[in-house]
Amino acid sequence: MWQQYLHQIQQGNIKALARCISLVENEVSGYEALLQSLPDSGKPVIGITGPPGAGKSTLTDALIGTLVNENKKVGILCIDPSSPFNLGALLGDRIRMSDWYNHPNVFIRSLATRGSLGGLHPKIIEISDLLKAAPFDYIIIETVGVGQSEIEIAGLADTTVVVVVPEAGDEVQTMKAGLMEIADIFVVNKADRPGADLFVQNLRLMLAPAFHKKDIPIPVIKTIALQKKGIRELYDGIIAHINHHRFNEKRSWLLAEKTYFLIQQKRMMDINKDEIKNKIEAAGRDFNLYRFIQSY
Amino acid sequence: MWQQYLHQIQQGNIKALARCISLVENEVSGYEALLQSLPDSGKPVIGITGPPGAGKSTLTDALIGTLVNENKKVGILCIDPSSPFNLGALLGDRIRMSDWYNHPNVFIRSLATRGSLGGLHPKIIEISDLLKAAPFDYIIIETVGVGQSEIEIAGLADTTVVVVVPEAGDEVQTMKAGLMEIADIFVVNKADRPGADLFVQNLRLMLAPAFHKKDIPIPVIKTIALQKKGIRELYDGIIAHINHHRFNEKRSWLLAEKTYFLIQQKRMMDINKDEIKNKIEAAGRDFNLYRFIQSY
Repeated sequence: MWQQYLHQIQQGNIKALARCISLVENEVSGYEALLQSLPDSGKPVIGITGPPGAGKSTLTDALIGTLVNENKKVGILCIDPSSPFNLGALLGDRIRMSDWYNHPNVFIRSLATRGSLGGLHPKIIEISDLLKAAPFDYIIIETVGVGQSEIEIAGLADTTVVVVVPEAGDEVQTMKAGLMEIADIFVVNKADRPGADLFVQNLRLMLAPAFHKKDIPIPVIKTIALQKKGIRELYDGIIAHINHHRFNEKRSWLLAEKTYFLIQQKRMMDINKDEIKNKIEAAGRDFNLYRFIQSY
Repeated sequence: MWQQYLHQIQQGNIKALARCISLVENEVSGYEALLQSLPDSGKPVIGITGPPGAGKSTLTDALIGTLVNENKKVGILCIDPSSPFNLGALLGDRIRMSDWYNHPNVFIRSLATRGSLGGLHPKIIEISDLLKAAPFDYIIIETVGVGQSEIEIAGLADTTVVVVVPEAGDEVQTMKAGLMEIADIFVVNKADRPGADLFVQNLRLMLAPAFHKKDIPIPVIKTIALQKKGIRELYDGIIAHINHHRFNEKRSWLLAEKTYFLIQQKRMMDINKDEIKNKIEAAGRDFNLYRFIQSY
């Protein structure tokens, strides 16, 4: 049965793909067999992240346009934090991408983080591997950078695009250190805002040490996503990164990171919280936390 | 040797306490024995958290003043995110607390998170248990609420105080859902700002469902920490929470959470990342992520 699903996915059957994503999401019995049957397709994964309000969805929307014009097929995963308090804002974002929902060369799937706090999605690695088995040319994962997620996307995407907006002149100093470390490409969106050029200049200065540490400079690309400006440059930057040998070095690092993460996750699931609670209650006042852990 | 340290800590020897914190932080050989020798002192831990800029440090500073006036001894742990990009701002905060650094009834220790992203501090549970062994009446843990840390402090503190500032009228809607869930006491600081009363009113409305779910309402206390206003009410609120039976219910839940967390941590450390990397390299193109995990 799983072999049949895999065959359908490889043929580009979108319904089979959507179905399999749900089966993996819900851990329907036997889903591991499907995952184990996936071939290593080598399809590149492009991660798009950055702080809320940077215009990631608009930029992704525009990038899909360029890819479709180039006759490429593209699969997109959007990760939504599931807090009820910002649902409105997120839906607003999504509506902008709706042009592509019915395009034959575009597949979009939204995944809610469902309480995996600060993380991406409990099955994001598995689901992106499913997408890689389908006949897409590129996979895009778009995520709101909150807490850890911008760090985690670096362990998932072959090419990580960090999207920021120009702030008053020198405020690039306050940018989160994590974003600096994970970017393969920086995008300064809304580049028609005042102070954008100074911001880009400061950003390039800050990225200078990376130029020496890494073997290629980190490009800083100016875009105005709403006007589709700078998108071609972004596309070219992504292709250049994919064709560079650093891409392959990052790949083997990524594989180790993913394996490590999934082993962690498996070990966590092996811990029985109810059993722990029962043991604590049984021990009563005699319970000693540190002796208990030593013996566990 | 560890028994002697424990004895000194119990006698109120601050140098021994500071030394033992460093030994635990650096996992100096045998530190587990010290932890296992700690008695269950039942000392209450007060957690103070909230978004950056809410005035947590100023509030903690004022609260220490009230405790000291009541002739109480108090141990404080401050958790600083260690990003070099906001060190300046954090140091500014710390300076305000410096009045207490040399007071005989006050012990303050700052802990950097050192890259444990979104978390509190890798050894925060152990260090707070060390403090509980010393003759303090109360332990305060103050943490900048970024990412997961405000959630994690709820698994550490017997009484969690969430500090917020009044925003324009209805913006309480945008408050992070996590803060709602973890608060035992809400503090609206900078309550002299315009719109504070409306904000407090809205906050109480939002907390209303919790009133029905839980058996006591969540107090919302107005403070102006810089002017030391409302601090007595906060102190009384904390004492009321500690004396309520819900406090003890939370305690057993906390113990299970801590145990679970430390077991997770131990299991993670058992995973050998280098070994994984070597196996991946040895397998080369034949490496299958999902088969590997199944077998691990």
